[in-house]
Amino acid sequence: MRVDVYPTVLNIPSPEDLAGRIAVVIDVLRATSTILTALANGAEAVVPFLTPEEAFETARKEPGRRFVLGGERNAVRISGFDLGNSPLEYTPERVAGRPVLLTTTNGTRAIRQASEAEALLTASFLNAPAVARELHRLGKDVAICCAGTRGQFSLEDTACAGAILAALREMRNGLVTNDLGHVAAELYRRHEGRMLDVLRRSEHGQNLFSLGLEADLIYCSQFGTFDLIPRLREGQITLGKCA
Amino acid sequence: MRVDVYPTVLNIPSPEDLAGRIAVVIDVLRATSTILTALANGAEAVVPFLTPEEAFETARKEPGRRFVLGGERNAVRISGFDLGNSPLEYTPERVAGRPVLLTTTNGTRAIRQASEAEALLTASFLNAPAVARELHRLGKDVAICCAGTRGQFSLEDTACAGAILAALREMRNGLVTNDLGHVAAELYRRHEGRMLDVLRRSEHGQNLFSLGLEADLIYCSQFGTFDLIPRLREGQITLGKCA
Repeated sequence: MRVDVYPTVLNIPSPEDLAGRIAVVIDVLRATSTILTALANGAEAVVPFLTPEEAFETARKEPGRRFVLGGERNAVRISGFDLGNSPLEYTPERVAGRPVLLTTTNGTRAIRQASEAEALLTASFLNAPAVARELHRLGKDVAICCAGTRGQFSLEDTACAGAILAALREMRNGLVTNDLGHVAAELYRRHEGRMLDVLRRSEHGQNLFSLGLEADLIYCSQFGTFDLIPRLREGQITLGKCA
Repeated sequence: MRVDVYPTVLNIPSPEDLAGRIAVVIDVLRATSTILTALANGAEAVVPFLTPEEAFETARKEPGRRFVLGGERNAVRISGFDLGNSPLEYTPERVAGRPVLLTTTNGTRAIRQASEAEALLTASFLNAPAVARELHRLGKDVAICCAGTRGQFSLEDTACAGAILAALREMRNGLVTNDLGHVAAELYRRHEGRMLDVLRRSEHGQNLFSLGLEADLIYCSQFGTFDLIPRLREGQITLGKCA
């Protein structure tokens, strides 16, 4: 089994390169933490969009469906949207039984970019151990696609990739990885049990902190609190095991 | 002083983003090790090209100039070229007093991509301490651009970026870096004095080893053996301090 790690949305392999592999998309701060939370709180689905315009248009077409529009640009809620990109906003009261249309700077772009893989799961610290178990069960080669921040390497996404690799290594021998996989696993090991330190050290975490969003950092730093695996199927992310 | 590290040629900032900064391009295996060696052995200049065709055309235009055509695709010498991309081929007998036209898979592309910076230096393990001293002298913000391997993160280029950062930190306080800068500095520290281990662990290093090029790994693993700084000026790389 081969598990490669890619540092940013710009480095996600081509559709041909992803064929036959399971893609795992990671945007710890905050898209994939938010997607998981929305689904855990009963959202019908999360639909990723590249632009606010696409999301608005989808909502306009079916006014009866009670869509929730969520997302950010530069960490701030989009004008006219219901919610921003803080997982703490996606409460059962707001999202249960409703589809969420989500667009974020890095995360939803990474999901679109990796969507040609055989299956696409999303991961964050909240569900990293569950994702590792699912990958072990599937037994296929894996492309862990870190979203990164504006096309650059991010500490938290790479540490989360390392957490998945470390957990997989405990389940199976002979795991092969690429250079970034080795670095990610070491990064995770050095911070094991201290994910909040990773978020506080990271540039993106410091940015959110300076915007008064420390509660988001604390929430997103929780490790393995959910046994749920968001999966993209026909453009919509829902919960559930792979086939 | 701010020193950011970028993981691959795909992540090199835009020309506007590079304006006013010093770019340091790193392709340890093997372009920037080869460029330094060619210049140390008396090459008049090294001229980076994106394609073999460009290099052939330049050579055809001035048949009297005794150009040396050097470079590789997938680690193998290009058909019709004088030399491959092994630094050991660039002996004084072959290159002294002659201009080298060089094209490689990752390194020369990274040099072209970063050429809009205020100044562009090339670094490898061979001259990392000298490059750090020069950056300290210049005192400007720095963009360390790792070439990476085929658009992916490479262990050796990142470790070399970390070596430059670590050396700079010893010379000046208050150095600010990005997430990858922190990871690179830690990577270097963990392997300090054992650069050959880095090259043997890296995917690209293992690939060269399997092609029988272990001597290149040993040569490129030498740390700080040259006090020379290759610099790009008007499309040509020569030795010398920045202005």
